[in-house]
Amino acid sequence: MSFANQIIGGDIRSAARLIRDIEDEIPSAREELKNIYPHTGSAYILGITGSPGTGKSTLVDHIVRALREEEKTVGVVAVDPTSPFTDGAFLGDRVRMQRHSTDEGVFIRSVATRGHLGGLSRSTSDIVDVLDAMGKDVVIVETVGVGQDEVEIVRAAHTTVVVLVPGMGDDVQAIKAGILEIGDIFVVNKADREGADNTVREIEAMIERNSHADDTWRPVVVKTQANCNRGVSELLDMINKHRFFLSEGHRLSDLFEARVRERFLGELREMLLKRVLEKMERNGSFNKVVRSLAEKTEDPYTQAEKTASAVLK
Amino acid sequence: MSFANQIIGGDIRSAARLIRDIEDEIPSAREELKNIYPHTGSAYILGITGSPGTGKSTLVDHIVRALREEEKTVGVVAVDPTSPFTDGAFLGDRVRMQRHSTDEGVFIRSVATRGHLGGLSRSTSDIVDVLDAMGKDVVIVETVGVGQDEVEIVRAAHTTVVVLVPGMGDDVQAIKAGILEIGDIFVVNKADREGADNTVREIEAMIERNSHADDTWRPVVVKTQANCNRGVSELLDMINKHRFFLSEGHRLSDLFEARVRERFLGELREMLLKRVLEKMERNGSFNKVVRSLAEKTEDPYTQAEKTASAVLK
Repeated sequence: MSFANQIIGGDIRSAARLIRDIEDEIPSAREELKNIYPHTGSAYILGITGSPGTGKSTLVDHIVRALREEEKTVGVVAVDPTSPFTDGAFLGDRVRMQRHSTDEGVFIRSVATRGHLGGLSRSTSDIVDVLDAMGKDVVIVETVGVGQDEVEIVRAAHTTVVVLVPGMGDDVQAIKAGILEIGDIFVVNKADREGADNTVREIEAMIERNSHADDTWRPVVVKTQANCNRGVSELLDMINKHRFFLSEGHRLSDLFEARVRERFLGELREMLLKRVLEKMERNGSFNKVVRSLAEKTEDPYTQAEKTASAVLK
Repeated sequence: MSFANQIIGGDIRSAARLIRDIEDEIPSAREELKNIYPHTGSAYILGITGSPGTGKSTLVDHIVRALREEEKTVGVVAVDPTSPFTDGAFLGDRVRMQRHSTDEGVFIRSVATRGHLGGLSRSTSDIVDVLDAMGKDVVIVETVGVGQDEVEIVRAAHTTVVVLVPGMGDDVQAIKAGILEIGDIFVVNKADREGADNTVREIEAMIERNSHADDTWRPVVVKTQANCNRGVSELLDMINKHRFFLSEGHRLSDLFEARVRERFLGELREMLLKRVLEKMERNGSFNKVVRSLAEKTEDPYTQAEKTASAVLK
């Protein structure tokens, strides 16, 4: 049985290896990804995003447990914000993996970027594909913050849950305005804290101002206390409600098409740059260009235009 | 006098217009950027990054005031995390601009991305160039969080200050591990809060573990209380110390070369994709590719390779 077939058959060892190869950017991983691609598209992708300290990891744990009770298989991709710089794995990840290690139906992996723009969103999509092809019913993508890379990641999700806590400081208004557009469901976690109702009201007011059209989803707000499992079933109800909403009309296929478009653009962008740079390294023009820019005899805009004209048919 | 010359002459109105044009991606902005490029490279670029609620905006205000007392001219680029989605300006920005509006030596602008990967770091570099060409002695780039786009931005700075506060929650270890590599100076702000010394010790232990070579900069930790201007002069001393460190040997020119290399790569990446997409739109192949991916008769990796082979010489 081929490697791809083993993954499609649900083999954990093969899936883990491919994920490692994706992260290490081993060329053969691309070939395997080509093979599993036709077997993707069945998993429901749930994006959960929130700043550090909002308790979203605890929330994810409860969601996983609830989904397991419904006999659904779950994959979790924890996007590791530390890793543009360090090769180290997410500290808490090993702990979490241990907690679910006896459950064959749960597969948790953290993903790191290798320090180039777009790398994080591309490798995350690839890893989601692996879990999807494995046959996981739900794939949860957990991200921190609202960087552009992470935004691309959550955009690819079917349902995006944005986790907030009461009283996050003076910049919170700006953050909320920014994440409003990506959130299908807003969770105010640590809802026992002072100011929780105020935070709920603020989010609802913002949703109101954003006046959605009749045929679009109107974001909802859910209060939770993840540490004592309060509000989690309400959150799951809302996720199911949004899932039902998406199932109507062309919404799911539109979402899928938008997703593959972005992935093609991401691959094409890197493939073009990679091939052109290889050529420039071979004929020594790359160093020449950098030197002319450093000496300011040329500018980066003109040089990019000239290079594009020189290499494109 | 040409538009570029007006900016080089320090004209605020022209600079503001070019910055607006950069953000609106008006094609003529590129031409002006080409013209001002030879006049860049004199400003000292100071990156200040920290999560929402760390008080970094207040800190930036104090740094601006202190630099103004030394008769230095200052530009501030506040990178707006909200704007991948909204066109709205940073809420606090207008307030801050008003505060310094009577001072001709300070120029504050917020920058927004237009929702594509790398867009934020590219437009920020362009805006830094404008302030640099205007003749600002110091350009402060203020960012939120540690997204990959923001990482590229702070990488371009001469000195990077990472602002933390005591007791940021359970994910703080992971965040700290990630930002360690970009921080030249760590600020523990709100140092009157419980746990401040603990946070300082944790950062110092992490710096220790990262064991730097003799000829590299060893990051330092500074405690501040920005709201009452405490510790700000110590921070400025450290910034000057790092600046002096960079002035030795080839460090400044190495940094500049690394910066122009990244900028060229950024420009080239987008230029190549833009031209290829234009071609694909013209001959209708883009929609064909997306359809084949949505139908899963093709995969994004193979399609990207085929496209690259078809368009490159």
